[in-house]
Amino acid sequence: MSINLDIAALREEYAAYRAKNLKLNMARGIPCTDQVDLSQPMLSTMLTAEDCHTEGGVDCRTYAAALFDGIPEAKDFFAQTYGIPRDYIIVGGNSSLNMMYDSVARAMLYGVVDSPAPWGRRELKFLCPVPGYDRHFKITQSLGIGMIPVDMDERGPDMDTVERLVKEDASIVGMWCVPKYSNPSGVVYSPETVRRLASMETAAPDFRIFWDNAYGVHDLYEPVELTDIFKACENAGNPNRVFYFASTSKISFPGAGVAIMAASPENLKQIKSVLSVQTIGADKLNQLRHVRYFRDADGVWAQMQRHAAILRPKFDIVLDTFARELTGIAEWGSPRGGYFISLNVPNGCAKRVYTLMKEAGVTITEAGATYPYGHDPRDSNLRIAPTYPTCAELQQAINVLCVCVKLAAAEKECQ
Amino acid sequence: MSINLDIAALREEYAAYRAKNLKLNMARGIPCTDQVDLSQPMLSTMLTAEDCHTEGGVDCRTYAAALFDGIPEAKDFFAQTYGIPRDYIIVGGNSSLNMMYDSVARAMLYGVVDSPAPWGRRELKFLCPVPGYDRHFKITQSLGIGMIPVDMDERGPDMDTVERLVKEDASIVGMWCVPKYSNPSGVVYSPETVRRLASMETAAPDFRIFWDNAYGVHDLYEPVELTDIFKACENAGNPNRVFYFASTSKISFPGAGVAIMAASPENLKQIKSVLSVQTIGADKLNQLRHVRYFRDADGVWAQMQRHAAILRPKFDIVLDTFARELTGIAEWGSPRGGYFISLNVPNGCAKRVYTLMKEAGVTITEAGATYPYGHDPRDSNLRIAPTYPTCAELQQAINVLCVCVKLAAAEKECQ
Repeated sequence: MSINLDIAALREEYAAYRAKNLKLNMARGIPCTDQVDLSQPMLSTMLTAEDCHTEGGVDCRTYAAALFDGIPEAKDFFAQTYGIPRDYIIVGGNSSLNMMYDSVARAMLYGVVDSPAPWGRRELKFLCPVPGYDRHFKITQSLGIGMIPVDMDERGPDMDTVERLVKEDASIVGMWCVPKYSNPSGVVYSPETVRRLASMETAAPDFRIFWDNAYGVHDLYEPVELTDIFKACENAGNPNRVFYFASTSKISFPGAGVAIMAASPENLKQIKSVLSVQTIGADKLNQLRHVRYFRDADGVWAQMQRHAAILRPKFDIVLDTFARELTGIAEWGSPRGGYFISLNVPNGCAKRVYTLMKEAGVTITEAGATYPYGHDPRDSNLRIAPTYPTCAELQQAINVLCVCVKLAAAEKECQ
Repeated sequence: MSINLDIAALREEYAAYRAKNLKLNMARGIPCTDQVDLSQPMLSTMLTAEDCHTEGGVDCRTYAAALFDGIPEAKDFFAQTYGIPRDYIIVGGNSSLNMMYDSVARAMLYGVVDSPAPWGRRELKFLCPVPGYDRHFKITQSLGIGMIPVDMDERGPDMDTVERLVKEDASIVGMWCVPKYSNPSGVVYSPETVRRLASMETAAPDFRIFWDNAYGVHDLYEPVELTDIFKACENAGNPNRVFYFASTSKISFPGAGVAIMAASPENLKQIKSVLSVQTIGADKLNQLRHVRYFRDADGVWAQMQRHAAILRPKFDIVLDTFARELTGIAEWGSPRGGYFISLNVPNGCAKRVYTLMKEAGVTITEAGATYPYGHDPRDSNLRIAPTYPTCAELQQAINVLCVCVKLAAAEKECQ
């Protein structure tokens, strides 16, 4: 490390922060109150007694088993918003994570299209681009599926490694991807990466990409387009390769929005045969509420602009402070959207930084969480979630963070 | 059969109904529009910008992973409404059926407390009291679990048979029960039946009763009390035997209400360890909306009185017409609550009645649906769902039904 770190001065600075008895939590990517306030009218003015019906006349206040996969206007809305085929869409409940878990569990119990047998009857592994999303990794871990980390670069997962692994190992049946503003790196998969994912040869006949487009419309600056994975897969002759997920959690209300999954017609036929046994359908009133409020993709775009206006200053605080304080010591991404900034501190320092932060009253995402089994082999990556705190709180938390990073680095140099 | 049926006259009568080109659907137990109108204010007046917080101050418009099993006031509300321990409750999404499916699927993948291995690794069977609920049977069928029908009598399932089977066959790991106003018979399990279910010896160490209390507060006349299954199980030394389910689907909005499951603390610990991976939590806003609207068990009671006032005349139409037209030809229940009337037509006639009805433009629940695999060995049972049509439509449909029953019976006598 080329920077000269004065450990005594850093210890003093750190002690001063500890003395402040801070209590800040930036562990999760949670929209702030100003953001959820944006959608408040949705809760009271969308549904009247005369007006709880779909365009086709179905009363959303009661069962309609024929619409178990979503009301027609919600399918239109999501197709337009995400630029995916309308007939690929299943509109679900309040959680895309739940749809992902259910999709893996369903594959365990029944298999997927092209499966020789239910996944649960064979040894299974998933590729896990790292750093990645801890809740993805917990799904595969919970279901006893092995996980192979694959490093991310600025174009997405290291495709040479991905291609080699899926070609030689038939037990690799799946891969977690957050293709746009990846959690936590902020990377957008390049067109070439998407094309290679769609066309690569897999030893498993039933390999599935779990395409979690959680931040598909969450641009902070100019809109960035993600290459169409469905089209790429179709062009490559692998039309059934992708299970696609998204939700309005960070558009309307986190945990009270509307989630979707999307997949090819052949996949959908198999999925619906199980889904229609699992449920009479998701909450149609909440679907209607969302469609009425946002109207169309333009309505979403306008809302996302308002979100971005709230979030940009927060991302700026983090990035400006890092540039000022951590240049030459750590490395970080400069995301153009999404909810996170990925910070790589010197190897062997991430856990120490997490602990120092915690002892100073600032909770960040646990070190290691961005890796399968919570194990970061370099002990280097930290996920910064700047959205929830106020700007003042955030500035304070990031100031503490920078001191902690420098102190941990200095301690390590002393060893 | 002691009744003299004039087949020529019946054919004429049936032809006259056919000529009317009726189009009536009473296939499912769906509340009518007047019923869903009762809860309309819930949709617009419950949640204001200043008031989307739990009593504990949690903003229900955003994530709160700590409340993934429900907001505290919803737990209180359901505990009081159903008379079950607050700490046994998980508040879920919009569908108790989904919670049931997930509970069986979870057992398949992970087992339950006391399981030697995940259920998916052994041969499995469920006891299915018949006539019963087709969507229960479809869950077990979908998951490849064998089903053994057990006849119902006026006290619930035939307990001599149940006790014998579960004692001798270790592959019987579960049993579907709708203990109050059973679907479709309307039977309420007797205290003795509940006690025997709770205390019977089972060969499987991990036997579970799936206690679907779908009609727990759905009295049409005086309130009927169901014996407390949790207390009975605890008293019998089998505290983990029951998975309990209920929902507001037929209290507020079918498919847009709030569902719960309940189980012993030991069960809950195991379930939550998986559930917390599956989801960040159900829609807390809808929980808050419901609690605000109903306030407490008294609020539910008042609402159920209004539902009953709408439904009683419909049940009367069916029962009065049956008494007038089918006495001596068929048998039926006289439920004191719930959503169905079970009709047993002469053996070998149910499918014929269904077809005759369909050809006359009246769709009823398919013959056989009340039995596992859709197979009614006596071809006798039909489920009558009188709630959705208007009284005039219902009277007409039941008139047609009575002619069809008599015609099918007469045809059979002629054979």
